[in-house]
Amino acid sequence: MAKAPILTPRAEDFPRWYQDVLAKAELAENGPVRGTMVIKPYGYGIWERMQAEMDARIKDAGAENVYLPLFIPESYLRREAEHVEGFSPELAVVTVAGGKTLEEPVVVRPTSETVFGEVMARWVQSYRDLPLLLNQWANVVRWELRPRVFLRTTEFLWQEGHTAHATRDDAVACYLDFMHYVLAVPVQVGVKTRRERFAGAINTMTCEGMMGDGKALQMATSHELGQNFAVAFDIDYLDDTGTRQHCWTTSWGSSTRMVGGLVMCHGDDAGLRVPPRVAHVQAVVLLVRDEDGAGAAAAALDADLRAVGVRSRLDAHTSTSFGRRATDWELKGVPVRLEVGPRDLAEGRVTLVRRDTGAKTDVPIGGAVDAVVRALEDVQAGLLAEATSRRDERTVRVGSVEEAIEVAQTGFARIPWSMLGDDGEDRLATQAITVRCLQRADGSVPEVVDGSPVGEDLEALVARSY
Amino acid sequence: MAKAPILTPRAEDFPRWYQDVLAKAELAENGPVRGTMVIKPYGYGIWERMQAEMDARIKDAGAENVYLPLFIPESYLRREAEHVEGFSPELAVVTVAGGKTLEEPVVVRPTSETVFGEVMARWVQSYRDLPLLLNQWANVVRWELRPRVFLRTTEFLWQEGHTAHATRDDAVACYLDFMHYVLAVPVQVGVKTRRERFAGAINTMTCEGMMGDGKALQMATSHELGQNFAVAFDIDYLDDTGTRQHCWTTSWGSSTRMVGGLVMCHGDDAGLRVPPRVAHVQAVVLLVRDEDGAGAAAAALDADLRAVGVRSRLDAHTSTSFGRRATDWELKGVPVRLEVGPRDLAEGRVTLVRRDTGAKTDVPIGGAVDAVVRALEDVQAGLLAEATSRRDERTVRVGSVEEAIEVAQTGFARIPWSMLGDDGEDRLATQAITVRCLQRADGSVPEVVDGSPVGEDLEALVARSY
Repeated sequence: MAKAPILTPRAEDFPRWYQDVLAKAELAENGPVRGTMVIKPYGYGIWERMQAEMDARIKDAGAENVYLPLFIPESYLRREAEHVEGFSPELAVVTVAGGKTLEEPVVVRPTSETVFGEVMARWVQSYRDLPLLLNQWANVVRWELRPRVFLRTTEFLWQEGHTAHATRDDAVACYLDFMHYVLAVPVQVGVKTRRERFAGAINTMTCEGMMGDGKALQMATSHELGQNFAVAFDIDYLDDTGTRQHCWTTSWGSSTRMVGGLVMCHGDDAGLRVPPRVAHVQAVVLLVRDEDGAGAAAAALDADLRAVGVRSRLDAHTSTSFGRRATDWELKGVPVRLEVGPRDLAEGRVTLVRRDTGAKTDVPIGGAVDAVVRALEDVQAGLLAEATSRRDERTVRVGSVEEAIEVAQTGFARIPWSMLGDDGEDRLATQAITVRCLQRADGSVPEVVDGSPVGEDLEALVARSY
Repeated sequence: MAKAPILTPRAEDFPRWYQDVLAKAELAENGPVRGTMVIKPYGYGIWERMQAEMDARIKDAGAENVYLPLFIPESYLRREAEHVEGFSPELAVVTVAGGKTLEEPVVVRPTSETVFGEVMARWVQSYRDLPLLLNQWANVVRWELRPRVFLRTTEFLWQEGHTAHATRDDAVACYLDFMHYVLAVPVQVGVKTRRERFAGAINTMTCEGMMGDGKALQMATSHELGQNFAVAFDIDYLDDTGTRQHCWTTSWGSSTRMVGGLVMCHGDDAGLRVPPRVAHVQAVVLLVRDEDGAGAAAAALDADLRAVGVRSRLDAHTSTSFGRRATDWELKGVPVRLEVGPRDLAEGRVTLVRRDTGAKTDVPIGGAVDAVVRALEDVQAGLLAEATSRRDERTVRVGSVEEAIEVAQTGFARIPWSMLGDDGEDRLATQAITVRCLQRADGSVPEVVDGSPVGEDLEALVARSY
């Protein structure tokens, strides 16, 4: 197989490697308006799988999908003071429409809290209407000064859950399961510091993944909005004694940024490595040469794989060299490759190649389907194990802010929050290092009281981030 | 069952009946910015089913999904002269973003032809790259002066297919099958006159459905763009002799407007009637009273229905009266209702109610699941048959423009195109009547040569429309 230096090696320049993978694996490219992106078929296929898996979990948790408008009256954003302050610098504003200047400009949604606030105020009347669990799949716009495809784009796709409850309640958190089970990304879950909290929330929980270069990526967040939005939008209900009460609301989101996280968590110097559960192409049957019945055998294997539910694709484009095609499928990170050639076939076997380890095995053609199914499970587990090892090896408990800065060059530092505090957080910021989240010493999520996480053993997880 | 006049009768005021159904069946409501809509969970569930069915057909036809940006540089729209002229009056324009006035304002996409043009120009290099079949699920914005929820909204959701071919080629038309088989709407397929053609196309094909009041609704369209966009955006390729050639492109779309069409085609004075194939709730198991094991029996029936793949829902909210709940499910148009009460159950039976005909049947509890499955097929076929009868009864062949105007008050008129022509079309326009499409006398789609449909027997299908 050709080993030309198609991609910049990660160790040499990780950001450039990332750009190379996006281009060569045909995931996405820049759109014509600065900061926007064009998601290509192969990249969008991954996003569709993410959506399907996430949507099923959201529905299982009892939430129903809705669609709210793209355009929000400017006045809505001003109703919640912290919210408008947080988002104002990033807003795109429509001032002209239908050939006329608008009397009230409309904002392109940066998130839909305010419109959900408005509809929830109408939809919730009595305690019987609670909890109200809603979700939306949509595009949102936040004007980005330093855009990077998938990670930080002016427009991105996401889901945003919005819920209203009679009492303070934790948000639905199907994220953790999704990240581990589907994406094979061993995220750290914790709460954000006041500085990093969502605009208008009383508490923000986050899932932080460690990328291949040791930097952190916020993969999803969940916000307790307290009664802030309920007060601003009159989301209230009559309780069972007939008394009017304000609701407690939450919101939670995950976006196309996860595609970037997938690339940076699992990719290697040969390209992308897609975990099988999120791969829209799980296996490729690669015809070496169409001789001595190899073409028919390859097509039959592809059909047999599909019949047992494997998302398989047949590559019989033998006018392109075998090596070039194998390299392309490696670049695209398809988890398992079955190579079918006349020579092997004459001996009753085909070659199975795992993308995660590169391991090649000869398997009898009669057992190839079973072997692929098993290999898919192994690759899924293998990628999670590899990412978990890296995360654990590169997470170091430290005893000073200086040490934290040192460790954060290559991974995550854990430092007692009592040793860091707001001042320490400011010092880290001067080094482009942030507190990704606060956890208990055992890695669990701390309790939050009056907007502050509590506990003797609070630790800050500190890193550089995307 | 209560028969209170919950909805305005259709015969009294069809548009008001439509608004009533949207509200009472909890499909959608107006958004805060004029012309926008909030799609509620029950309405969005129908859209999700439409998407799933349509998406499967689009993928079967070989197209791949992509995502292109919401924002388009103004200059892009100007590249194709007719296109910009057609859309200019409807554009929403972002002039301020990130706190600054933009140097070049960006347009919120009214459709994505121009961005597809730009990416196709890069993705197509050689004849080997053709045909290129792409599709996008997205929101688009066209500033509407007279908005109506689902039918004509400032923002709507849709899919837009865009394809590039080496030779002039008909667009993929999975629409007809979808409309008949899934939506049970017997659409007329034909070509648009020059006056009604898409801005920038050389030919527009349309699927026209007849609504309950005899008016037409354009349910989906498909445009041959000729080489217009290929010339404007340099979408060209090297043919097998190495000569540079312009591509031929097409685009085709269907939108949330179909939800409005579904309501107006199948609804009756008791509410919505959803064809089973597009219903996200196909059957409701309605517990009459939770006595003598009826609750457990209802829950078991619901589980059994789900086990055989019926999208069933259990309604055990016995704190609300049975009559009220039955009326609500009627309003929502759930195709089949199973009523489970202690009295019937003691005799080993439950009551099955078909939403389309209102017919009630006692069925033995052991045969209830099979009876529901059969009833779902019957309702699907029944709704299509009813809509087809109405369409055929209300479509009249006429011999003069005056007659056409008369017939169009209650249905579709078919008039020889040679008798109507451009002048006749202008006369109809003064009566708010349009040519919905041109067909052959046998109802088939005519050939189009140099932008004009040809044939001795061309007929215009003439109607009022939404």
